[in-house]
Amino acid sequence: MLSMSPSDTRPIVEPRFFTFAEPPDAGLPLESGRTLGPVTLAYETYGRLNAKKNNAVLVCHAFSGNAHVSGFHRPEDKAPGWWDDMVGPGRAIDTDRFFVVCSNVLGGCSGSTGPSSVNPATGKPYGLDFPVVTIRDMVEAQRRLVDHLGIPKLLAVIGGSMGGMQALQWAASFPDRVRSVIPIATTLKHSPQQIALDEVGRQAVMADPDWNRGGYYGRKPPEKGLALARMIGHITYMSDRSMEDKFSRKLKDGKVSFSFATDFEVEGYLRYRGDNFVKRFDANSYLYITKAMDYFDLSGDRLFGNGRSVRTRFLVIAFHSDWLYPLYQSREIVHLLKMRGVDATYCEIQSTYGHDAFLLEIEEESRLIRHFLAKTQDIAGREDG
Amino acid sequence: MLSMSPSDTRPIVEPRFFTFAEPPDAGLPLESGRTLGPVTLAYETYGRLNAKKNNAVLVCHAFSGNAHVSGFHRPEDKAPGWWDDMVGPGRAIDTDRFFVVCSNVLGGCSGSTGPSSVNPATGKPYGLDFPVVTIRDMVEAQRRLVDHLGIPKLLAVIGGSMGGMQALQWAASFPDRVRSVIPIATTLKHSPQQIALDEVGRQAVMADPDWNRGGYYGRKPPEKGLALARMIGHITYMSDRSMEDKFSRKLKDGKVSFSFATDFEVEGYLRYRGDNFVKRFDANSYLYITKAMDYFDLSGDRLFGNGRSVRTRFLVIAFHSDWLYPLYQSREIVHLLKMRGVDATYCEIQSTYGHDAFLLEIEEESRLIRHFLAKTQDIAGREDG
Repeated sequence: MLSMSPSDTRPIVEPRFFTFAEPPDAGLPLESGRTLGPVTLAYETYGRLNAKKNNAVLVCHAFSGNAHVSGFHRPEDKAPGWWDDMVGPGRAIDTDRFFVVCSNVLGGCSGSTGPSSVNPATGKPYGLDFPVVTIRDMVEAQRRLVDHLGIPKLLAVIGGSMGGMQALQWAASFPDRVRSVIPIATTLKHSPQQIALDEVGRQAVMADPDWNRGGYYGRKPPEKGLALARMIGHITYMSDRSMEDKFSRKLKDGKVSFSFATDFEVEGYLRYRGDNFVKRFDANSYLYITKAMDYFDLSGDRLFGNGRSVRTRFLVIAFHSDWLYPLYQSREIVHLLKMRGVDATYCEIQSTYGHDAFLLEIEEESRLIRHFLAKTQDIAGREDG
Repeated sequence: MLSMSPSDTRPIVEPRFFTFAEPPDAGLPLESGRTLGPVTLAYETYGRLNAKKNNAVLVCHAFSGNAHVSGFHRPEDKAPGWWDDMVGPGRAIDTDRFFVVCSNVLGGCSGSTGPSSVNPATGKPYGLDFPVVTIRDMVEAQRRLVDHLGIPKLLAVIGGSMGGMQALQWAASFPDRVRSVIPIATTLKHSPQQIALDEVGRQAVMADPDWNRGGYYGRKPPEKGLALARMIGHITYMSDRSMEDKFSRKLKDGKVSFSFATDFEVEGYLRYRGDNFVKRFDANSYLYITKAMDYFDLSGDRLFGNGRSVRTRFLVIAFHSDWLYPLYQSREIVHLLKMRGVDATYCEIQSTYGHDAFLLEIEEESRLIRHFLAKTQDIAGREDG
């Protein structure tokens, strides 16, 4: 729950944890056929659930995100949550109006159960004994959290990139539990190029001898492999143009070294981002979460089933210069929605930031989301009397 | 020299070697200020130099190419040279008309002097003691070969990708030695995105403990790191669309494995290409040659110097869907040429193959090149009487 700290006007939020599928429960049934339990989800909430329980917005995070979407954990924190510009008092996802929930995904490494969690069967971290989970499994776990929080129907599920896949999956898995969906910079299914990029990231991790077939807990983790995977990722998050704008061919030390040291600023940036990432992310989670994205495929009849009438409203947002989740993938979502007569709005936002745009083009994105949520709330208000 | 074998009509070509800068020569002076010697270039020739010595075409290979551009070394060879569709009897670069030369680049690992060559000072492979070379250095070495072959002025220098950089460098370094230049799918300078992609490839090699700071000769080479670098490369050589056409989401075994084995055909393809590459390529050459590309910058006045009149003719070719060397980079070349009043033709070829198109869109490319070479030969014939 988000609150103001007495000494500071910075909104302070507390990390929370919800555990389910504990024995004697048989565990959370997974798409693979395996079960997993107990399962803990790390989550945060902001604002208050209203009396009609119809103002809840679920925010789903992208690949390397976490539950900390807004505000600060401690007044001395340097940086706020990862989408603080979008979520907070007076922001587009207005915590004065909405009850906002964000949880770390199943398989993650920021408080939710994942490969670095202790396997109750062995008393040791799962490592590769952790089952391969899917976006559907992640959403199934989120549904338990939503039940736990007493939310009968979400006003909206919103997310960018892998968060958008989860939002789409909510519409597929629990159409009666979600009034609207906002998939941003995402896709109905991972393309072979997206799978290929994920695969080289995984191979980078697995080629690192410190990976040790996933059994590196309590030892040196595969830092080089994970940093390398992240470097590849960062190239795909930016655009050719945004790299040109930010780095051009600027040299770190004014001249080339005629060696394999860092010559160009862009090289230093990538190494820095790679090295920083390994401090906060688990290499096995990298494998599991990218695999979940690669398995994701709601194309064809998978999004809505065959013939079912769809009452969920959609706002689909995509960005020019995003080459990781190109415009055509969002247009495919919209095409599918329109073919089914679904109430869907589609917006393409001009940007040079590439895939990162969903975290950076806040102003235009905010306007679209604010308006869409207000309208959805109007409809909810009328329907709920 | 290309010839027909008696038992077969397949054109047989013999690998050749040219060594220069031997003691007491002080060595080949390099852009870094260092010198290198002796230097050997592996090369092949096809067709015959005519009496006027004005029918020589120099083909420059791309990053992982070699001197074997056409024909077969042995009648039993399964595959011909890397651009056999383009270079040969009756082909666009017609070996019945032209004397075609192709050499492995300085720094390479297919017969020319590179980091895997023996350092005469130590009697051991250079490894990282090999000097960092540039595209200019590569072209300087080629010029010695052209001298050796008795060619006063090349009819054309042609190449795709890094081969195109060498072609441009010829116009910059030796404007009086080259009548025409055909840069294909290339750039005046590596962009930060291109540098970034090269840098992750280098980091992949250098993160492999078998790399051993370049000192792996006679031991296990850094196969995993080099395969990984090559996998990244292959993603950039294809387009999103060509990957979709070739692989879509096809599964290797009909269903997903819920493991980190190879699920999708695209994953299997990348692993195969990566594993194959390490059998034929030296990891240190990977570092040196990508560095040469990253240093490449003929923008501004660097291509022609200031005010010099330019008599070299240009045919610039680029491909739609090539996102590694995008159209705008070829347009920048053409813009620079036109600003200087240079005789330049620019063609964009429709293709879905991505950067690989320069090796695949042979039909349209051939038509353009055949016509351009014929016209250049006409001009040469008139000028040379």
